[in-house]
Amino acid sequence: MKWNELADWFRARDHFCILTHRRPDGDTIGCAAALCRGLRKLGKDAVIFENEQFTPKYQPFLQGLTAPEIPEGAVIVSVDMASKGLFPLNLPQPYPEVALAIDHHSSHTPFAPLVFLQTEAACGENIWKLLDELGVEPDKDLANAIYLAVSTDTGCFRFSNTTANTLRCAAWCKEHGADCFAINRAMFMIRSPGRIVLEGRLMERMEFLKSGKIAICPIEQSLLDELGLTEDDIDDISDFPRQIRGVEVGATLRQVEGEKGKISLRTTPGVDAAAICGLLGGGGHVAAAGATVEGGIPGARRALLDAIDRYGYGTERP
Amino acid sequence: MKWNELADWFRARDHFCILTHRRPDGDTIGCAAALCRGLRKLGKDAVIFENEQFTPKYQPFLQGLTAPEIPEGAVIVSVDMASKGLFPLNLPQPYPEVALAIDHHSSHTPFAPLVFLQTEAACGENIWKLLDELGVEPDKDLANAIYLAVSTDTGCFRFSNTTANTLRCAAWCKEHGADCFAINRAMFMIRSPGRIVLEGRLMERMEFLKSGKIAICPIEQSLLDELGLTEDDIDDISDFPRQIRGVEVGATLRQVEGEKGKISLRTTPGVDAAAICGLLGGGGHVAAAGATVEGGIPGARRALLDAIDRYGYGTERP
Repeated sequence: MKWNELADWFRARDHFCILTHRRPDGDTIGCAAALCRGLRKLGKDAVIFENEQFTPKYQPFLQGLTAPEIPEGAVIVSVDMASKGLFPLNLPQPYPEVALAIDHHSSHTPFAPLVFLQTEAACGENIWKLLDELGVEPDKDLANAIYLAVSTDTGCFRFSNTTANTLRCAAWCKEHGADCFAINRAMFMIRSPGRIVLEGRLMERMEFLKSGKIAICPIEQSLLDELGLTEDDIDDISDFPRQIRGVEVGATLRQVEGEKGKISLRTTPGVDAAAICGLLGGGGHVAAAGATVEGGIPGARRALLDAIDRYGYGTERP
Repeated sequence: MKWNELADWFRARDHFCILTHRRPDGDTIGCAAALCRGLRKLGKDAVIFENEQFTPKYQPFLQGLTAPEIPEGAVIVSVDMASKGLFPLNLPQPYPEVALAIDHHSSHTPFAPLVFLQTEAACGENIWKLLDELGVEPDKDLANAIYLAVSTDTGCFRFSNTTANTLRCAAWCKEHGADCFAINRAMFMIRSPGRIVLEGRLMERMEFLKSGKIAICPIEQSLLDELGLTEDDIDDISDFPRQIRGVEVGATLRQVEGEKGKISLRTTPGVDAAAICGLLGGGGHVAAAGATVEGGIPGARRALLDAIDRYGYGTERP
């Protein structure tokens, strides 16, 4: 599917509902908001399905765009959704058909008849290019939504997935009125006092392996509760272990959805996070991936160590 | 002085010595390295004066470029130097004449007969434009030096001084082979375990005023020693108080040069850090400024509170 075909597909339809992924982040929300606004500017009907896990931090970007149900007759488009397993928790079952998936995960497991997959770019860059292809007039709200998507996907242009095109996309956003500093401040700079204390406490319980190259950080809900921390306070905590000097493989472990354990893995160049998480039925990108397994935090720890071993990290490979 | 005049000035000379400022950061070092390399590529003699405060983190960027003395007959150019008071501590006295100052501080106090001042851009962007004007062929080392300058000056494109041009400059660096991720990791992502513990400890001694809008953070040398932290571990610590939710005016206080107190001030839009520090004989930018006063940390605290009052922060102004 080429860019012009993708644009034609949107031109030929009038009613859209956009899906974001489970535990929605700035990437999926920014993409959804930009696409929804762009389609409305073309005179189309478009809404974002109200993911029950939307957090307050992102509300300003979603204002006026969401609907609690999928409107009758709307075609469904997912953005930044790597697999069916990441559909919103409150999406009614049996699942409705997603007509088109726009994604950038190399681990994408097709669930829609049409997939537009560009793994070389942040998903927000793809929406940016699509809206340009569709002839959507830029404005400040669009620029804010795209900036949210590309900045959060790249850790404010720090991560290895940042390309020259990502930076040019951000320059475009800035030029079209995006409140870059306010977004940077909310997403990357401001920390609650509790968050700062949390990081010190997590340092104490961090497990280091292979001479400090692997760091594993269990994050118990009880600790978050004790410090009064919300999801918004810690939504970038998965990067924390990899920030420690010498660490090449950093993981956070959390208990989710009852008795499951969620692994969030971050790696430095040379270690493929998506391949490691792929061994556990998860996926993602080469430097940032995740998997959900049975057995809470202890189960996640065992599964992760096993996957790292099977992947062959820290042993000589032929 | 226009760009072409600046370029002509360099073309007309053959021997250069470049000065960086006291407590050198990535901005002054990146600018110096890019300028030095660019001039050498044009067949000129150029060195960077070996500032005794260069730290190990920046050594890769300075390799092969520095000289312990100012070479006979070299014209001296300073980069990112706001005033004579910021000359390197080991610059021989009486001070030699600086022929040209290339700077971007609105508080620039002229000390050189020629000043090229562009306050709208990171200093690295100006060096980038100058080298282009001079017809210097881009290469990876140049791209790395310019990337170091622009990324550190803007906190990896998070701060309010980031413009569309800064982001385009960074895109150019990436395209010309800059090791952006490695630089980002070294400058913005990696923290030592001690640094993480330090932040928790600093939270405990942080002083909050005006309902949490002002945060003042004394950083005693004894605490750094106890945690085994070097200057490289904490060279962006001045931004720490402003990262706390609700803070509009954040300052760190340190004892320097014997009995003096160094104030590093960071503010959010609407509060002019350079104006506040200007009241204490210091200066800088609207969102990031500094001043050095008598009396160590207690003297710095008193002087800062007094300056904030005199500036009129937190009181209704007509």
